[in-house]
This record gives sequence, C-alpha cells and structure tokens, in this order.
Amino acid sequence: MNFNYAERMSSLKASEIREILKITQRPEVISFAGGLPAPELFPIEAIKEVNRIVLEEDGQGALQYTTTEGYNSLRKWCAQRMNKRLGTNFNFENILITHGSQQALDLTGKVFLNKGDIVLCESPTYLAAISAFKAYECNFIEVPTDDDGMIASELENIFKNTDRIKIIYTIPEFQNPTGRTWSIERRKAIAEMASKYNVIVIEDNPYGELRFEGETLPSIKSFDKSGHVLCSGTFSKIFCPGFRIGWIAGDKEIIQKYVLVKQGTDLQCNTIAQRVIAKYLELYNIDEHIEKIRKVYKERRDLALETMESEFPKEIQYTRPQGGLFMWIELPEKINVRNVLERCLERNVAFVPGGSFFPNGGHENTFRINFSNMPNDRIVEGIKNIAEVLREFV
Amino acid sequence: MNFNYAERMSSLKASEIREILKITQRPEVISFAGGLPAPELFPIEAIKEVNRIVLEEDGQGALQYTTTEGYNSLRKWCAQRMNKRLGTNFNFENILITHGSQQALDLTGKVFLNKGDIVLCESPTYLAAISAFKAYECNFIEVPTDDDGMIASELENIFKNTDRIKIIYTIPEFQNPTGRTWSIERRKAIAEMASKYNVIVIEDNPYGELRFEGETLPSIKSFDKSGHVLCSGTFSKIFCPGFRIGWIAGDKEIIQKYVLVKQGTDLQCNTIAQRVIAKYLELYNIDEHIEKIRKVYKERRDLALETMESEFPKEIQYTRPQGGLFMWIELPEKINVRNVLERCLERNVAFVPGGSFFPNGGHENTFRINFSNMPNDRIVEGIKNIAEVLREFV
Repeated sequence: MNFNYAERMSSLKASEIREILKITQRPEVISFAGGLPAPELFPIEAIKEVNRIVLEEDGQGALQYTTTEGYNSLRKWCAQRMNKRLGTNFNFENILITHGSQQALDLTGKVFLNKGDIVLCESPTYLAAISAFKAYECNFIEVPTDDDGMIASELENIFKNTDRIKIIYTIPEFQNPTGRTWSIERRKAIAEMASKYNVIVIEDNPYGELRFEGETLPSIKSFDKSGHVLCSGTFSKIFCPGFRIGWIAGDKEIIQKYVLVKQGTDLQCNTIAQRVIAKYLELYNIDEHIEKIRKVYKERRDLALETMESEFPKEIQYTRPQGGLFMWIELPEKINVRNVLERCLERNVAFVPGGSFFPNGGHENTFRINFSNMPNDRIVEGIKNIAEVLREFV
Repeated sequence: MNFNYAERMSSLKASEIREILKITQRPEVISFAGGLPAPELFPIEAIKEVNRIVLEEDGQGALQYTTTEGYNSLRKWCAQRMNKRLGTNFNFENILITHGSQQALDLTGKVFLNKGDIVLCESPTYLAAISAFKAYECNFIEVPTDDDGMIASELENIFKNTDRIKIIYTIPEFQNPTGRTWSIERRKAIAEMASKYNVIVIEDNPYGELRFEGETLPSIKSFDKSGHVLCSGTFSKIFCPGFRIGWIAGDKEIIQKYVLVKQGTDLQCNTIAQRVIAKYLELYNIDEHIEKIRKVYKERRDLALETMESEFPKEIQYTRPQGGLFMWIELPEKINVRNVLERCLERNVAFVPGGSFFPNGGHENTFRINFSNMPNDRIVEGIKNIAEVLREFV
C-alpha cells in the first residue's frame, strides 16, 4: 500500500547498529557494538527495596499522573549534582525530567528547529542525535574536530559563512563515539560563540561521571553568561537505563518551552520510576555505586588498550579515552571497515562501523568499540580476534 | 533574552487545564477538572509483589536497555486483547509500545504530517491531541459531529473540497470530552472513506474498556480492509497512568515507520514498567480489576447524572455517557462559561471550560465534567454547587 507519509520519513532509515545488535544477541558473540552498561553492576537488591518503600509510603501518588516538569526532589538532585560537579548554578526550576537524555534531544529539535535550519556537530558525533534532529528536517554541518574538541577557528569560520545555524550539539566528556574530552579553552570558546551568534549549545553529558583518571573539567555551561547553553544528563550510565530517566537543564524561559512541548509529546515521565530513583538517591550512596562502575570500566578499558597495543598492526590509530564507554579506531584509508566487520562477525566479534556517526557520510575506514559490556576475558579474546583480522587487511 | 525558537513555538501555549489543575491540588477543592483515574483503585499490593518477582527473576534484563518495539509478551497481550474485544486481527508485530497513548499521537504527527497538512477531528476533540499534532504545524478542520460520531455526509463533503488531508483523529468510545460513542454505521463509513481517500484514521481508545451498560461495538479498525486505520490504547485507565505505558497498533509497514521514529525520539519505553505490567497480566485477573473500576465509575456517573437531573436548570443540556470518565455540558449561548467557572472556583468546585477542546476556538458556553476522581458525596456536593451557580446565570 502506498501510504502518504510525511516528507521527513524519506530521510530516516533504520539504524545500522540495530541490525548488528540483533546478531550480538547470540550468546557466543563478543560484542563491542552497543553502548550498554554492565548489567551485573545494576543495584538490583536496592531497587527492589526502594520500590517496596515507595509503594508503601505513597502508592497512590507513585502510580498516578504527575506534573510534566517531573518529580521535584529528583529535579533538585539533578540541579545540585550539576552545580557540585560542573560549576553550574541551577535550581530545580531549571530542570525538566525527560525519557532518557535521548528525549532531551528530540525536544530540542522540536523547540528550536525549522525545516532547513542547521545543526553543527562534532565530526563524528552520536548516531541517535543525528536521527533525533533529522526528524525536524534540519541539515548538518560537521565541525572539524581534534582531540581537544571542535576547533574554535573552524567553528568561527562556519558561523561567518553560514545562515540559519540554530544548534551546536556537543558531547564534551568521553564523547560517543570517540571517547575524546574537550579542553577548557575550547569549552570557553564555544560558550562565547553561542552567545555572540545567538545559537543554542546542547552539552550532552551521559558519561561525565565515569572518569577513570584526571580531574573533572568545568562544563561549557559554567562559561555561559547568556543562557545559550543547555545541559542534558541521564541515569542510564550511573544507575540503569531501563527506567528511561534523564533530564535537560537550562535557562528557565527555555525550559518552560520544553515543558510545553513535552506536554503534547507524552504528558510526563513515568511517575514511579522518578520516585524510585529519588528514593534510591536519598537512602543509598550513589557515589559509592559510581565508584564501583568506574573501577570495572577502567579495568576493561585498560585491558582493551593493552591488548590493542600489543596486537594491533602499527598502522592502526586509536583513541585512549580517560573515561566513558567508547574508543575509536581509524584504519588506513584504503581499508573499508565493512569488510573487516564481515570477517570479524565470522569469528563472532562485533563492533559498529564508523560511517554512521558522520551525518554527511564517508569515513568508511573507522569504527567504534564499546568496552563496558563484556567481561575481561572476552575483551582480550575479542580484541585479539579483531587484530588478527586487521592483519589480513593492512 | 531573545532566543531563536522554531516557528511552531508561537502557536503552542500552556494548557488551560494545567492552570486549573494547580488550583485543584488544594484538598478542599472538588475537582471535576482533570481526567484522573481513581487512585484508591490502583492494585498497589499486586504491583509491589509483581515488581519483586520481576526483579528476582531477571533483574538485569528488567533494568537494561531493550528493543524499541517493546516487550514481546506485552505486545502479544495488546494484540490478543484487541482481537478479542474489538474484532481486529493483530499479532505482536502490529504493536509498538509507547509512552502512554499520548506518545502514539506525537509519533503519528511525526510519521505523517508535513507543515500545512490537515487533520480532521471531532468537534470537540481531545485537547492534548490538538497539542500533539499542532507541533507538526498542521491545520485542523472540525468535522460536524452529533451523538453518533462524525456525520458521514459532512466528512465526505470536506474530502471533496479539501486538499492535503492526512489524518482523521477519532475517539469513538466514550469520547473525551463529550462521553459520546459512535454508531456502527458511522464506524463503517469512516473506514471506507479512509481507504477511498488514502488518509489515516487514528482510532484512539483509552476508555473503551470502561463500559457501564450496553454491548461493546466493533471497532473502526474491524471495518478496515486497506490498513488505513491505526488503533491506540493505554494501561492508564484500566491499570494506572504512572507507568506511562500505552500502544499503537496497525499495518506492519506503518508500525515499522513508527518504530524508526520512536528510536530517535526516546529509544524505547521503560523496560521494567513493561515487564511489571506483563507479569501482572500473567499472574492476576485484569478483567476482575476492570470490573471493579467499572462499578465504581458507573456509580459516580449515576450520581452525577441524578444530581444534574434534579438540580440543573432546564435550559442546560448534557450528555449521558455509557462509559468512560467524562460528560459534556452545554449552556445557553448567551452564557460565557468562564464567568460560571470563576463563581464555581469561589465555591471550591472546578471543571474545564469547553473552548479549549475546539482547535479553531469558540463554544465558550460549554464545559467538561470528569466523574471518575471524586468520591460519591463530593460528586453530589460539587454538582449541587455548580447547579446553584448556573441558576444565577440562566
């Protein structure tokens, strides 16, 4: 049947990752493909207990409709956490609770983008941010990016030569897919440019709490004097993703627009999920829990890096992330990574080709490795397998 | 600050209901305003138990990311339930789990609407459907509607004289805000027209399970031969709204488009919420639970109607819904309901003026009453208060 879809549908296609993830559901596959946290670290017993308490204390409230803005004590926690860690100055009214930080991106598109507007992003950038914004029929310009983040002079050039830029999308901490972290200077520069050119910066920060070494840097938002920077966050990587609870923080006027738009989108986030997380934060020590996650992920990163150092051919470049879930591999340009993937899948090892992380395509000699979801021995085995395949190609 | 929002933002405004709902949070207020289910009927003990079981059986799975489509056993239940009650022919692949049926409306806008496209709706229609679709910059045509639903000849006329119609939005069972139920003939007629003119019908059905009398009618979908009808449903009114779990059901090709769009919107619905509901449906008898809700709401409707019959001035017209949560009141045209509301709020009684339920405005002599959320004595007291105020105006 020839149904009459919206024009935007012609540019949306199924994520390649989803197809690869189907393969990775086979237990024999060593998967570096998804961005899944380690489920063996979920605080299941605590969640069971907290669920019970929340339902006993106010079951009717926990299961009823609630406000679009979100549960106030959870909003307060988000504000205070950011203020403490990231040098921001938020209170609960600056926070909207969202269905994961993914929804923060969708709402951002709805609040800011007209068809044909331009979104600037890192090159490469988070795959599902591309899908979120693309639904609002924008175009993307990839800002040349190095190990310190978007290159400020290149950004300035783009501004001078381009109309209709609305949003700059960034992940300054342990970026997805590269694992890179922005320098302080670059953070300052982008905050100033946002104000100068009246565009919005989305500072997406799902991995910032998972730093393995070095000191936490001040956020882009901490340099923002005009309200142009919005921060998104999530409980998916520090608690668990199944609840789909994240948030967006920013200027009160802007957040009210997000609230308005979220109301028509899905009314509100899951009431009991918000209360369970808030109660967990009240009764348990999340810093101790995050410390556990950090330790495990650091060990996994170390093992992956060590194995890559000893086994990968010299021609292969890769990032050495100071935190987060991902590292990024660049092959010599003559190699098409899809051929490498095919050979790796035959050996039951999966990863995601890098091309999908570039909104304007290309870069078929790159790939992303997730190191948070596999136990130590499988990480070593998997990387060794990739190394063997790579040796066939270089 | 003059932030550079999308054009759509200029047409979105805060829902009037939200402002009224703030007033109704004061415990002394008798509220007929919201669409809240009765929280004293939530199966809190069962949910506590089911939460425990789900976390014990597979806590890691219940707290991890899952597929965009939703939890398969829940999708199966939705398909089977609709097949049994509504004469449809779905299997789990026809179902996408959504964040309440509200999200089904948002995704519908995203999948089908270009700026300037037209949505046909009942007159009046569900307020938040207007907001959901408006975000995609459509225009609305209100189809003349009587007690049997949209008038088929009027609908045909509109089709003959209008380009760019994409969606017909309907609530054929105990409609929000009027409580009306469509006749079988009208259901057949609209299914045929959808196919003839290649437009999509959304058959939104949040209240259908809450029938107090008479027999369940075959759905619009049951008359659909070409796949143009999509059905949405929700657990909000038969279980509890706090979980934000609903669904959209339809032609497989179309549902795959919804999945694609949901992926960029928020990745997936809450994993544990889906599993808890599925486990509840497995271990408990939801029919018995729904029967309890029906009984209580029927009693409340009866009380409200009886009180209106004895107390309301003769000039006042109102609907006598066979189920659901709402009834609809029409005052003589000279009366502006906002003046009535003001006087009622002074007496601590709240309802929602009807004007907001018409996308193109007008009808300031109407209002909606929700009868599901107040205990019996307060229903009688509240309706008596409204009656006294009305006597001042007629």
